[in-house]
Amino acid sequence: LVVARECDDARGPAVEIIDQTRLPHELVVRELVSLDCAARAISEMWVRGAPLVGVTAAYGLALGLLQGASDADLAGYAATLRATRPTAVNLAWALERMLVHLRPLPASTRASAAFELAARLADEDVEVNLAIGRYGLALLQSLQERALRKRSHLAILTHCNAGWLATVDRGTATAPIYAARDAGLPLHVFVDETRPRNQGASLTAWELQQEAIAHTLIVDNAGGHLMQHGEVDVCMVGTDRTTREGDVCNKIGTYLKALAAHDNGVPFYVAAPTSSIDWSIAAKDIPIEERASDEVTHLAGVTDAGEFTRVRVTGPGTTARNPGFDVTPARLITGFITEFGVFRPDELPLLRRRLEAR
Amino acid sequence: LVVARECDDARGPAVEIIDQTRLPHELVVRELVSLDCAARAISEMWVRGAPLVGVTAAYGLALGLLQGASDADLAGYAATLRATRPTAVNLAWALERMLVHLRPLPASTRASAAFELAARLADEDVEVNLAIGRYGLALLQSLQERALRKRSHLAILTHCNAGWLATVDRGTATAPIYAARDAGLPLHVFVDETRPRNQGASLTAWELQQEAIAHTLIVDNAGGHLMQHGEVDVCMVGTDRTTREGDVCNKIGTYLKALAAHDNGVPFYVAAPTSSIDWSIAAKDIPIEERASDEVTHLAGVTDAGEFTRVRVTGPGTTARNPGFDVTPARLITGFITEFGVFRPDELPLLRRRLEAR
Repeated sequence: LVVARECDDARGPAVEIIDQTRLPHELVVRELVSLDCAARAISEMWVRGAPLVGVTAAYGLALGLLQGASDADLAGYAATLRATRPTAVNLAWALERMLVHLRPLPASTRASAAFELAARLADEDVEVNLAIGRYGLALLQSLQERALRKRSHLAILTHCNAGWLATVDRGTATAPIYAARDAGLPLHVFVDETRPRNQGASLTAWELQQEAIAHTLIVDNAGGHLMQHGEVDVCMVGTDRTTREGDVCNKIGTYLKALAAHDNGVPFYVAAPTSSIDWSIAAKDIPIEERASDEVTHLAGVTDAGEFTRVRVTGPGTTARNPGFDVTPARLITGFITEFGVFRPDELPLLRRRLEAR
Repeated sequence: LVVARECDDARGPAVEIIDQTRLPHELVVRELVSLDCAARAISEMWVRGAPLVGVTAAYGLALGLLQGASDADLAGYAATLRATRPTAVNLAWALERMLVHLRPLPASTRASAAFELAARLADEDVEVNLAIGRYGLALLQSLQERALRKRSHLAILTHCNAGWLATVDRGTATAPIYAARDAGLPLHVFVDETRPRNQGASLTAWELQQEAIAHTLIVDNAGGHLMQHGEVDVCMVGTDRTTREGDVCNKIGTYLKALAAHDNGVPFYVAAPTSSIDWSIAAKDIPIEERASDEVTHLAGVTDAGEFTRVRVTGPGTTARNPGFDVTPARLITGFITEFGVFRPDELPLLRRRLEAR
């Protein structure tokens, strides 16, 4: 999704991104031409989704290095980008990979090396998600028989957007869905609208529509009811940061869905690259981003006349708390679908040893 | 809130209601002048909230009887009103009380008797909610000490609107809040916005603002996170129908909050009149109203220019499932705050014997 390109005019290189704040109403592609522009794209959520934020930050660093590439510049750019969003670990992970690679290089070669590594991170993200899709497909196939005894398809519930808009391609939580579609498995996706920013309603529903995958939008309140009535076979979500114990920090409301899945014997899977595991942190120490009140009190949409507009849905004096993420305890997670296979939370130490042995 | 009044012109009697679909942006009072008008007020949710719907239906029946008062008319009116909304039991309960009272009367006196009984039901609702407030206050006082060790106030989370807008006055779930405010207990209310119709954001927040009670709006996704972090001392909700086993049918999403409360040791109370208990039904047989898709895909609000407008927040092709209610199993309910005191779910048979002995 993120494409670095050399502009053919004098403006210098730019990174093209889809402005996700305009979807599903308009498909707007923006050019990020500077570090500040990339930082703004992340903090204002033109790009969002942990893996895509990581890659965008990598390109942001590269854009910055075109203006100055001293050690101090490098450290300053990384600090600026790291401060844009505190919760997802991929951002810090991508910047750290960039810094480790770039610090030993002479300043004169850092910018071009940065663009190369950013492109490699983007390519890797595609590969990782394809692998997640393969392992997730096998898992969905194992759930298929039981589902098809109840109805004509496998029903998946997902929260927020961990689709190709959240990554460079394929998505994490949606990679198994696309793989299942390609394999001819009949499926239907319940899409949590995911208040306050409606990533499900605006992005996941739009993505699935583009891909011609059957889906139904639901309010975040409805998932528990559907699970109580046997209408959901599996929940699949992404993660912004997972602890070594397998506690999952993800979009606010994930915890409530995991509770309902556990209460109704519905398997609850987290599909994510191993780069989203933070081996160093405990759940209580993950910084939870608190965002602005007006994300709750105001909503954007299109009027009957086709005009894009923003409305206040509350009274003028109403203010909101707006925590962006919650932590789902490992005891509610059935497994992690990673690029190296599916692991139960208690198998994460095994995964860690495998990663360290590579 | 519902006031029957004799109009001073030739239009005949009318029942004044607040059109809740316009709040918090406008305070619009509408006059219901016929049975059909009352039925429309209920089905289009100008009035909503189980107790208020019951009283409005009673007045609707009275308005109908002005046009014709035969046995067939009576049965027909009741059937029309009963069909407006299937889930809440107060509607059927109020109509049944009306029918039992009116059937033995001669047709010529039925209309005036109906207005009298409707007024009595309204008065009773006020009394019932005052009693709920008294018992709820005692309960909040018992929770106060532990809360004040953590912070300067008692924190209550509520879902949907079970406030005075949902009843004739005081509300059910809010009656203890108003009683606590009157008693000088420091409190703060977390208001679930309650998608899709936003009764929390539009109605509860507006009500609490009118009453100068400290409150914060949150998205429905956020309550679990707040409970995990010890920020909620008690949950208090209403009910549309409670079974004899203590299973609680209430606004969609209530079940998810009850799961989170249970998972975090937060007491979860249902404040409701005994008329909302359906002693005859099992949870699986409660009809769950499925409402229109566009309640999810569209939202109304006020633009920066102050214009009231409706916007579509999803892509044009997106459709939604929209179940209006869910059922919270009795095992997740701490107690019922009724007009006769506080009862645990396993004490409902005791309550039933008390009611039958009256």
